[in-house]
Amino acid sequence: MAGSTLGNLFRISTWGESHGPALGVVIDGCPAGLALSEEDIQSYLDRRRPGQSQITTSRKEADQVEILSGIFEGRTTGTHISLLVRNTSQISRDYSEIASYYRPGHADYTFDQKYGFRDYRGGGRSSGRETIGRVAAGAIACKSLRELGVEVCAYTRSIGPIAADLTRFEAQAIRETRTAMPDREADARAVAYLEEAIKKLDSVGGVMECRVTGVPAGIGDPVFGKLDAALARATMSIGAVKAVEIGDGVQVSARYGSENNDAFRMEQGQVVKATNHAGGILGGISDGSDILVRAHVKPTPSIYAPQQTVNQSGEEIDIQIRGRHDPIIVPRAVVVLECMTALTLLDAMMTNMCCRMDSLTEFYRK
Amino acid sequence: MAGSTLGNLFRISTWGESHGPALGVVIDGCPAGLALSEEDIQSYLDRRRPGQSQITTSRKEADQVEILSGIFEGRTTGTHISLLVRNTSQISRDYSEIASYYRPGHADYTFDQKYGFRDYRGGGRSSGRETIGRVAAGAIACKSLRELGVEVCAYTRSIGPIAADLTRFEAQAIRETRTAMPDREADARAVAYLEEAIKKLDSVGGVMECRVTGVPAGIGDPVFGKLDAALARATMSIGAVKAVEIGDGVQVSARYGSENNDAFRMEQGQVVKATNHAGGILGGISDGSDILVRAHVKPTPSIYAPQQTVNQSGEEIDIQIRGRHDPIIVPRAVVVLECMTALTLLDAMMTNMCCRMDSLTEFYRK
Amino acid sequence: MAGSTLGNLFRISTWGESHGPALGVVIDGCPAGLALSEEDIQSYLDRRRPGQSQITTSRKEADQVEILSGIFEGRTTGTHISLLVRNTSQISRDYSEIASYYRPGHADYTFDQKYGFRDYRGGGRSSGRETIGRVAAGAIACKSLRELGVEVCAYTRSIGPIAADLTRFEAQAIRETRTAMPDREADARAVAYLEEAIKKLDSVGGVMECRVTGVPAGIGDPVFGKLDAALARATMSIGAVKAVEIGDGVQVSARYGSENNDAFRMEQGQVVKATNHAGGILGGISDGSDILVRAHVKPTPSIYAPQQTVNQSGEEIDIQIRGRHDPIIVPRAVVVLECMTALTLLDAMMTNMCCRMDSLTEFYRK
Amino acid sequence: MAGSTLGNLFRISTWGESHGPALGVVIDGCPAGLALSEEDIQSYLDRRRPGQSQITTSRKEADQVEILSGIFEGRTTGTHISLLVRNTSQISRDYSEIASYYRPGHADYTFDQKYGFRDYRGGGRSSGRETIGRVAAGAIACKSLRELGVEVCAYTRSIGPIAADLTRFEAQAIRETRTAMPDREADARAVAYLEEAIKKLDSVGGVMECRVTGVPAGIGDPVFGKLDAALARATMSIGAVKAVEIGDGVQVSARYGSENNDAFRMEQGQVVKATNHAGGILGGISDGSDILVRAHVKPTPSIYAPQQTVNQSGEEIDIQIRGRHDPIIVPRAVVVLECMTALTLLDAMMTNMCCRMDSLTEFYRK
Repeated sequence: MAGSTLGNLFRISTWGESHGPALGVVIDGCPAGLALSEEDIQSYLDRRRPGQSQITTSRKEADQVEILSGIFEGRTTGTHISLLVRNTSQISRDYSEIASYYRPGHADYTFDQKYGFRDYRGGGRSSGRETIGRVAAGAIACKSLRELGVEVCAYTRSIGPIAADLTRFEAQAIRETRTAMPDREADARAVAYLEEAIKKLDSVGGVMECRVTGVPAGIGDPVFGKLDAALARATMSIGAVKAVEIGDGVQVSARYGSENNDAFRMEQGQVVKATNHAGGILGGISDGSDILVRAHVKPTPSIYAPQQTVNQSGEEIDIQIRGRHDPIIVPRAVVVLECMTALTLLDAMMTNMCCRMDSLTEFYRK
Repeated sequence: MAGSTLGNLFRISTWGESHGPALGVVIDGCPAGLALSEEDIQSYLDRRRPGQSQITTSRKEADQVEILSGIFEGRTTGTHISLLVRNTSQISRDYSEIASYYRPGHADYTFDQKYGFRDYRGGGRSSGRETIGRVAAGAIACKSLRELGVEVCAYTRSIGPIAADLTRFEAQAIRETRTAMPDREADARAVAYLEEAIKKLDSVGGVMECRVTGVPAGIGDPVFGKLDAALARATMSIGAVKAVEIGDGVQVSARYGSENNDAFRMEQGQVVKATNHAGGILGGISDGSDILVRAHVKPTPSIYAPQQTVNQSGEEIDIQIRGRHDPIIVPRAVVVLECMTALTLLDAMMTNMCCRMDSLTEFYRK
Repeated sequence: MAGSTLGNLFRISTWGESHGPALGVVIDGCPAGLALSEEDIQSYLDRRRPGQSQITTSRKEADQVEILSGIFEGRTTGTHISLLVRNTSQISRDYSEIASYYRPGHADYTFDQKYGFRDYRGGGRSSGRETIGRVAAGAIACKSLRELGVEVCAYTRSIGPIAADLTRFEAQAIRETRTAMPDREADARAVAYLEEAIKKLDSVGGVMECRVTGVPAGIGDPVFGKLDAALARATMSIGAVKAVEIGDGVQVSARYGSENNDAFRMEQGQVVKATNHAGGILGGISDGSDILVRAHVKPTPSIYAPQQTVNQSGEEIDIQIRGRHDPIIVPRAVVVLECMTALTLLDAMMTNMCCRMDSLTEFYRK
Repeated sequence: MAGSTLGNLFRISTWGESHGPALGVVIDGCPAGLALSEEDIQSYLDRRRPGQSQITTSRKEADQVEILSGIFEGRTTGTHISLLVRNTSQISRDYSEIASYYRPGHADYTFDQKYGFRDYRGGGRSSGRETIGRVAAGAIACKSLRELGVEVCAYTRSIGPIAADLTRFEAQAIRETRTAMPDREADARAVAYLEEAIKKLDSVGGVMECRVTGVPAGIGDPVFGKLDAALARATMSIGAVKAVEIGDGVQVSARYGSENNDAFRMEQGQVVKATNHAGGILGGISDGSDILVRAHVKPTPSIYAPQQTVNQSGEEIDIQIRGRHDPIIVPRAVVVLECMTALTLLDAMMTNMCCRMDSLTEFYRK
């Protein structure tokens, strides 16, 4: 567990609730000298901002980031970076009903059991708005990684039964389609599917995927510090994710070794793998191929259809949830997966810099 | 990453290589006063011991554990527990061939890239024998959890395409079948399937599952400290695991919210869930239902059939791996999953004890 | 090092610079259910606020705290608490001179060497204003400890050669004297001594002391987790502290064992110590007596008298520092020591709750 | 607290009791490629070995180290290093008396209060033999630092009232004198003083000092990660240390700023300090001057003279401790201070490698 901090050398602590005054993040260990502006961060926050199409919540939030520390004359100073986003669109309404019962699929019951009471306004700390801090910090990790030649790209792989066809992969489409799919044709079908679900007062699940290119071989540690273990933790920590796959993931369990092993080959004087079933990680350490992470996301638990539950007095009741909810989590969570992957990789790449004695000698003796 | 230590309050550091003199683990933070003998630990090690049937490696190891510290007069003292297992069956042979090339699916290449060289004898630190330390520590976690009313039980869910039928679940079968399946009929078919693969000089993958009963609601932390995130990390850190599912896992992504939400009901004055798609965790915190973790394991990368690879001189070569290897990892890894789950849960339950001010007051004021 | 976060279960991350828009702290792991208002925190911040007498800097800051998360209906929720204090009194002036050279006794040179450049406005992150986050978090730790019967009280022990006489100890005086001494007579002499130093454009050092009452025996861990080791780290992390003592501290090195050992006695059925040379800690674990920590603080490095130094071009130059500086650090740092001690103790007391198996059993089985 | 592990990137976990079968340490994160043999470690262990002169305990222990993992073909592999030392000289005797009461100045009472019972044989985990793991790991840190041009040298500064005169400093004397003083004349007087104390059945305290040369400017982190804070924690974690000083330490509190500030000067094109009152650390970060740490050690609590204490039945009793005890801790603890300093510095230097973005770019882009 180790508290609710993420990372070892590039370490973040997020904070804030759905209906509090603000949310944010403190970053400890960001390397000094990175050029950084609020725009660098804002462009990531804009990708998770609500209210952008009819398939997301109608809650309108500007989600403007404010840099409070750690930047001087346009560059990171190496000390703590504090980022803050004000909540502006909390609708003042009566929460007494929602306070009294446990919404199915939500953390209402578990928070009450753990802490004895909960901030019930919009889910409090368990709200999806919690990811603002992740994305703000992740934007910095992504920018840092790009300086190192590493690109992190997440997208919607499928929505309900509608899957993107990666042979039609178009990077531009991820930012332009309402579903964040890289395949415009699948997007159109997925939107139709979603509209049908919305009509039925229902919600749907989906799959998101993240591909990382440019990671050198050798990143990650053996045993508990495996890179895939760190990615699994980071990915599963995103609310609503119920499964994480690396590379071919669940498919490997039905295969023969002769099918699943990736042969090593030489290409332009470099060791490469003929295939990439492994998803870029062998023995917990990157092998130089693309790293592939997949996350299975459950349908939004807040649905407008009637449901059965119990209230705090222990009575079984029927409820109908109101409010403003996304009918699907995936399109806005794609950037969260991208950020969590980037945070994990940057931390691992920083850790990796002192794994050989000759690197230390070169650093301190030159 | 945070180095290669696992856990925060119940913290373990494992060590040792396949062909070194010994392997072991140091445990920091085990509560004082737990009755503990070498037998308690040995019974877990015996479940992962090699050489027990024709579907495991022929390497014979007694894997006898020795307690070196932290126990006094049969009880844990609260200070560091050191456990050691001597390697006894390293066959002295010529490793120069294996040293020269990179076995597909193994960590040979990635270790070389990371560290500049590697202990190539039997995989060194990346060998499956590394899990001895996990199981030795996990045995203590399991015993501690039983004192708290928590039972952790892992088993083989499927081997290749052969799945156990859980309607025929028989706990005793897990310890008695060669596959660690809880279903003797599926076991028989799986063994036949494995024998066929062995004949073809191939290996196969499988799925293992872990069910935890008796965990109270309220365990786990929000955001990055989610219980499922910690379980995902612990599970993915087991060599050869390529996917982790919680509860219904990958299936949730194709569902409607109305199908996937678990309704709350009352049962004997207790809040319960009518179904358990969530696998016992909501918002990263246990909900009182059974916790269900599933791990997809790739086929053993060491196969006797010819393969293509490259050597350290950058030449493409054909190889045929010799030595003693398991044709499937799953049956011996089931106890590792059980232990990793137990280590994660115990740490989370210890952390949970100070999450309410009134618990502190009661502890210190009474 | 472990990054710049403090604590394990009650964990804080502070942020902010002297001349940035704001400073603050994020607290992870504060137990749920503690009644908490901004006033609780403000009263601590007021004790370190500048501009309160002629022996402190003339910089005027309201240092008003704003609670941004983690409190709901007047109580802590158990999730991240974010606290923010706006800077309001930065004087807009020309920093180009101070930017060009290294002030003796300050971190200018070391920050430049570490990070390649620095935020030179008022010391940036190395400014004493950095302690705002510590005090804001420490106020919460102090309040929590009071609920557990633990009182933390720091005061000025000496200023230059003028020492408080503890036989005249008056708790009220700590808050009322300009020096934070518990002895009004020594305070008068110390103020005279300070005024003399101010006239000479000089600064002076001093000693602060913290006494903790009500800590039960058994807090702290063996080996590296010793309570005195944690206190030493926390105390030495306060800027300008150059020595830390526990109990009789430096005096013990000149003693015989027969003089220094504290005999155990019985008092009202309780084990007590006849003396307390040990300062309440034996073997790194609290023994039930008062805990005593002492910190030696160097004179403020910013003095108005001329000094020699070098500039960034490598030229030896003479400088005269201007600006607003405290002629002594101690009176305003006393509350920082109190807070650092409280943060360390609360974390240790939370950790201690799961050190016995029977505590776990009682917690989960009752 | 963070458990009883030390270090972040170079992390150690020690284990073992005075009268258990063995003691040892596991090191996680030692850089790969360091040439390392058992001799490298043994030479450090020999410096803390008991039974070497009449002023140390008569317990004879060979303290032979065994490397169990992490070394391959004479070099560290980058994976966990496990080191073990067998206890061989436990005298089998009746511990029932010592088990029944609390020795003054020892951890008997605090362990009992914390854990409910204790391993009373020779102090169990609180024995000075616990430092074997520290020294074994520290030997590796020292060797690593030497590769980076850093030399760590600890010695006895004073014993009771007898202080070494550093104008007579002779490095060779540290290894050859019985007191580990660098001044043979003071050594002679100190031995006489000790012999007198032994005759009186008493013990004495002393001061040890550690000087580190060759540390580049820029090591350490701001705020809680200050290098002096880490050194203070590491030093105070050594049993019997009651005060830690950096540079001029306790003397600074009685000075004026004009006396205490170290002027910067140029010397051969390098920025240097004209004096070193700061002890090589400014703002928590190394400034390129020698780092100086001083530790005040209490007299050995085990004395043969009669003492008063209480037993577990709550009766006040008179005791006379038997057994084999050092009349002074300092001479054998000097190497422990050296090792703790080295472990802290190496960890800080590893952490420092990724504090600038251009270091990352150079590492990954070249």
